[in-house]
Amino acid sequence: MRGVVMHAPGDVRVEERPDATIVEPTDAVIRVTASCICGSDLWGYRGPAPLAEPRPMGHEYVGVVEQVGDEVRDITVGDYVVGSFVASDNTCEICRAGYQSRCVHHVMMGTVGTQAELARIPHADGTLVPTPGVPDADLVPSLLAASDVLGTGWFAAVAAEAGPGRTIAVVGDGAVGLSAVLAARQLGAERIVLFSRHPERAALGRKFGATDVVEERGDAGAARVKELTGGYGAHGVVEAVGTDEAMSQAIRSARPGGHVGFVGLSHDVHLDGLELFYSTVHLHGGPAPVRRFLPELVRLIWDRTIDPGQVFDLTLPLEQAADGYRAMDERRATKVLLTP
Amino acid sequence: MRGVVMHAPGDVRVEERPDATIVEPTDAVIRVTASCICGSDLWGYRGPAPLAEPRPMGHEYVGVVEQVGDEVRDITVGDYVVGSFVASDNTCEICRAGYQSRCVHHVMMGTVGTQAELARIPHADGTLVPTPGVPDADLVPSLLAASDVLGTGWFAAVAAEAGPGRTIAVVGDGAVGLSAVLAARQLGAERIVLFSRHPERAALGRKFGATDVVEERGDAGAARVKELTGGYGAHGVVEAVGTDEAMSQAIRSARPGGHVGFVGLSHDVHLDGLELFYSTVHLHGGPAPVRRFLPELVRLIWDRTIDPGQVFDLTLPLEQAADGYRAMDERRATKVLLTP
Repeated sequence: MRGVVMHAPGDVRVEERPDATIVEPTDAVIRVTASCICGSDLWGYRGPAPLAEPRPMGHEYVGVVEQVGDEVRDITVGDYVVGSFVASDNTCEICRAGYQSRCVHHVMMGTVGTQAELARIPHADGTLVPTPGVPDADLVPSLLAASDVLGTGWFAAVAAEAGPGRTIAVVGDGAVGLSAVLAARQLGAERIVLFSRHPERAALGRKFGATDVVEERGDAGAARVKELTGGYGAHGVVEAVGTDEAMSQAIRSARPGGHVGFVGLSHDVHLDGLELFYSTVHLHGGPAPVRRFLPELVRLIWDRTIDPGQVFDLTLPLEQAADGYRAMDERRATKVLLTP
Repeated sequence: MRGVVMHAPGDVRVEERPDATIVEPTDAVIRVTASCICGSDLWGYRGPAPLAEPRPMGHEYVGVVEQVGDEVRDITVGDYVVGSFVASDNTCEICRAGYQSRCVHHVMMGTVGTQAELARIPHADGTLVPTPGVPDADLVPSLLAASDVLGTGWFAAVAAEAGPGRTIAVVGDGAVGLSAVLAARQLGAERIVLFSRHPERAALGRKFGATDVVEERGDAGAARVKELTGGYGAHGVVEAVGTDEAMSQAIRSARPGGHVGFVGLSHDVHLDGLELFYSTVHLHGGPAPVRRFLPELVRLIWDRTIDPGQVFDLTLPLEQAADGYRAMDERRATKVLLTP
């Protein structure tokens, strides 16, 4: 099969890889109908760390089930399915509490590599959510978004306790931050403040439900949120970047007793205990348990209540994946969809 | 009036101070019937930082109202009252959300100094909770505990989401940690693991509801909690120390998706963002909004449902406060009560 492999920072190739096959009896193999490039894929792409060995890429996917292992019960060949970027059994105590991304048997799909024609899905029954049927073509980007960016933004908005009467601020105007705006709106937030200096992203943010766009960053940004909220700060803040500055900005934008949902993969983030102590915020985040939300997200997409697929602003055939990495690295694209 | 004043690290004196008086029309003045020495008072006592000027000490108190300002409506001269270590108006948006310790008009009672015969209580209507009558003498220590250590331990247990079916671990066997054990039991926790190497404190912890006592610390302690919980970790963990080691131990003792309630005043705590990210815990803490819980705590004490006053293991007259500081500094006492 054809698949994306990273050989070194900046060196991504589409090449022949062994066909995905059933390894464990709980596996399925899907034919990928759409995958995409994640902001987190760029961390390796931008180096500087050399890779120990070439690495298959990709962890987001929708597709059609081609094979199932002997112990797969709920998923059937021919099902059109969406899964999260973490495979999970969905039966352990951690999964049942809603933290499937930390399932005791979890498998990071990035180790499988879904930017390919076929993909092995571990724990198929626990991981995959079938759609009601074969989706119309225009629904595919949205279903694919549910696999990671939408699910992650949704989790962040839930962690920020977005809801009626609440003001939610969102740090990060990438695909996850924009998805968090959409989620906060859907969860009923009254006011949604998006930090952005990027006109197109800000425009999509407004389309998704942002009521205010703030260009200031850091402490100036936090001060602006306080001004907008009677001096109190936001009830909830989403952090969708992963830098120290973004995390500080998020914590300082929240009111005492507020909620910060952080989903940006942390890079050099160090929190000062005393500041956190006096902030009195709730802090919750990490790799999003997307599986918790997938059935609802699929339903909202299927019913055309939400249209998160708009975060994709470039679609390329899988064979041109390297162009997609370049476009995201150079910020010419927010999020790149790859078709077979 | 007589009152405790710290002149320098290690130098605490009882001396004449100006009588407390009404300054703002929302103030009350109480005659203190009991106050006490807090673990946090020891940070200054142990130095090494010299004091800019002599400092009145104490922020915990119960007493009888002697005077009220012109704008005080709900508190009456003669009321027997309990208040938190933070005075709060209890009407601002932050107070109404339950975060009175971060009231927009909050006053830290440590700046007032309640280790004295009289104390000025700002925002009397918002701060003070009258008891149903003059308490029996044996209830006074418990009511005094509600002013800080019990209220703080209670907040920590709530932040750790103690409740039926839950396993709660408690890092710190001081008065706050022990109070958190009591709170977790009262909130319905099924299993309560107290970290302690101190036989008397562990014994009181068991009396308060601890089902397990673990002597290991740090990662070994966290590993022991995982062993006790089927490999998952505790549902909730209370951190009541404030050191970097204690915070790490707390986070590592919690299961993915678990809750860490931290109330130890942070000293040199630095959290690594990536570890926190992958821990997937909820982190919440800070100066406890004791006022949120005071009415319920007073009721539970009045009904003799709980007896948190047992954390006091030394009672001294106010005039001997310096002996009390020494006893706590030398760990001969867990918590010292001061009588007029």
